[in-house]
Amino acid sequence: MSIIRTLGKIKEQKPLIHHITNWVTIYDCANIVRVVGALPVMAHAPEEVEQMTSISSALVLNIGTLTVDLVRSMILAGMKANEKKIPVVLDAVGAGATDLRTEKAKEILKKIKISILKGNSSEIGTLAGADAETKGVEAISVKGDVVEIAKSLAGKNGLTVVITGKEDIISNGKDVYVCKNGHPMMGKFVGSGCMAASVIGAFAAVEKDYALASAYALSFFGIAGEIAAKTASAPDAYKAALFDKIFDLKENEIKEMERIEKRG
Amino acid sequence: MSIIRTLGKIKEQKPLIHHITNWVTIYDCANIVRVVGALPVMAHAPEEVEQMTSISSALVLNIGTLTVDLVRSMILAGMKANEKKIPVVLDAVGAGATDLRTEKAKEILKKIKISILKGNSSEIGTLAGADAETKGVEAISVKGDVVEIAKSLAGKNGLTVVITGKEDIISNGKDVYVCKNGHPMMGKFVGSGCMAASVIGAFAAVEKDYALASAYALSFFGIAGEIAAKTASAPDAYKAALFDKIFDLKENEIKEMERIEKRG
Amino acid sequence: MSIIRTLGKIKEQKPLIHHITNWVTIYDCANIVRVVGALPVMAHAPEEVEQMTSISSALVLNIGTLTVDLVRSMILAGMKANEKKIPVVLDAVGAGATDLRTEKAKEILKKIKISILKGNSSEIGTLAGADAETKGVEAISVKGDVVEIAKSLAGKNGLTVVITGKEDIISNGKDVYVCKNGHPMMGKFVGSGCMAASVIGAFAAVEKDYALASAYALSFFGIAGEIAAKTASAPDAYKAALFDKIFDLKENEIKEMERIEKRG
Repeated sequence: MSIIRTLGKIKEQKPLIHHITNWVTIYDCANIVRVVGALPVMAHAPEEVEQMTSISSALVLNIGTLTVDLVRSMILAGMKANEKKIPVVLDAVGAGATDLRTEKAKEILKKIKISILKGNSSEIGTLAGADAETKGVEAISVKGDVVEIAKSLAGKNGLTVVITGKEDIISNGKDVYVCKNGHPMMGKFVGSGCMAASVIGAFAAVEKDYALASAYALSFFGIAGEIAAKTASAPDAYKAALFDKIFDLKENEIKEMERIEKRG
Repeated sequence: MSIIRTLGKIKEQKPLIHHITNWVTIYDCANIVRVVGALPVMAHAPEEVEQMTSISSALVLNIGTLTVDLVRSMILAGMKANEKKIPVVLDAVGAGATDLRTEKAKEILKKIKISILKGNSSEIGTLAGADAETKGVEAISVKGDVVEIAKSLAGKNGLTVVITGKEDIISNGKDVYVCKNGHPMMGKFVGSGCMAASVIGAFAAVEKDYALASAYALSFFGIAGEIAAKTASAPDAYKAALFDKIFDLKENEIKEMERIEKRG
Repeated sequence: MSIIRTLGKIKEQKPLIHHITNWVTIYDCANIVRVVGALPVMAHAPEEVEQMTSISSALVLNIGTLTVDLVRSMILAGMKANEKKIPVVLDAVGAGATDLRTEKAKEILKKIKISILKGNSSEIGTLAGADAETKGVEAISVKGDVVEIAKSLAGKNGLTVVITGKEDIISNGKDVYVCKNGHPMMGKFVGSGCMAASVIGAFAAVEKDYALASAYALSFFGIAGEIAAKTASAPDAYKAALFDKIFDLKENEIKEMERIEKRG
């Protein structure tokens, strides 16, 4: 497999990606899934989430504007996803910033077999029990080596851990991938982290090696981000260029620019 | 009446279009109403929806991210709209994908006199009792002739039915309009279906022949979509061009490009 | 202090701006805060709002799509903000359009010490007890002089009142500032009012003279709006240009274009 072949499968199969997500970036998460070539669906009513998950190929959970009720829907959907053996991505937005976020992220991890746990260094650090500080939804600091944190947390929980940052760290407890694609402009507008989780969901829907799927997704997203920076230097123009590059990223661009390193 | 005259009335009267809608495209629905020249208002608290509907000229209901509570507010608002004799548009997003969506769409249709029921072929097919498949919010298949489905469902329920697709079908049970405007790029970003329902709401606020209002709205929206495709070929740039073309669509563009056919 | 120095403090301190806001413009409110150089966080669960406010430097409340529960969270967060002595901005979206909005705005004003109350002329007029009409979220009319309304309401309640419009009026009961920056295009898309409140939140986080902070924020926002109008004449292109100008507004542009007049 490769990014190009995985992307080809997405465009061919058009997997349905069920999201239970936040109200801030909900449009962008849906839209990026569409632009990648998959089909998004956003549904959170407890009466329908299980059925919606049943017809989907991946489930993306994002606690960016969580409520207790919304997490209940996430757990219902997640249990159904586990039963159907489709991948579940958890974006632990703001874990560490409030007790509610930390506790609910832990509760989800306990009750559902998460396939891919994603967050920035302080969100994942918090969930790994490291000394970390999260300011709202921003990583401030984490003590310890992020590669070790990812690998150890992944191994302990039997899942893939993704720590996003200047370099993205991906580990399933054995393999470690470091993805060096991306551009600082991706942090100048709101939501690139949420969008990354949605792209991971689309890749994981068609590639069952979830660590590889995550590395591919982040490299793909990052390459588009690097190319977008060549034509746009302000946030809104940049975001538009990013989406439009994702829509028509060329095979040779992917081949020449992919910077995934396998370690450990 | 004509598209141009209807549009002129919207810009002159600035009708207030009350939406109870989904959290994905809520901004775009509000924004397109504003760009067309009407005034959007989004309000869903059960304590205020009746009063908000009372001061509005049309009500747009969209079940894209429905909950049981939200549907309750829709019914309250819809009953008030019926009392005030203002048009009610129902966009049956995802009907057929889950039982909740199918049942709640049917419940709304039963409790409220809907003026215009809109959906894609499988959503409307489901509500018409045809054999149909909806994948999330995408039409997959429907058995039977869509024109017949629209006409029959409209006749039986005494409303206007709009089935969007490559060609849009509009029927009030007697008249059938086929609108051939539009462009495939309109399906490359999320939300054009929801936006179409909002544009229909603005047109129906000032044109009481709801089948005609719907045909005008879809032709208008589709013409802007065709022109936008001349300058933009990627989703984000295209969506921006679409909104901006809607803002300043010229009379001669409308006259030359309108493709509404009356049948039956 | 000056706009430039205040802006410098925002970019240096990156204050966290906690929002409990509406579902329509939630993304744009977060994004504009980011683009200005501060950090947005949107969180509304009653279990976490107090803790989120505790780590924030300002709280922005916006009743654009209020529910009774959401207002409860606003009051919890507001009480914590009062305890921590951080500024609280209330954007009274739609006050006067429904009883719920008017009553809940008044309840918030009674239970929380609001630092800056913002609205258009009919929203503020309604809260001041003047004869005013609000159509959805649009100002229709208000009886009386807006400068007097602002000054009197501010004096009575011991807060800063901001009335947005062609000219923005800001008063803390003693000082009156009139900000003449801005451009009619800012009203051609949805959300510039909400965004203005978020920008005010960011400025108030670092400038404790809240009337001055509000005047600076609105002048800053308006200058960007004037410059954006030079390159874009349709709503979507204009909105993009506005965000991108906010991102890199130059010191000399601010110096040359600032039009804040102090009165009274």
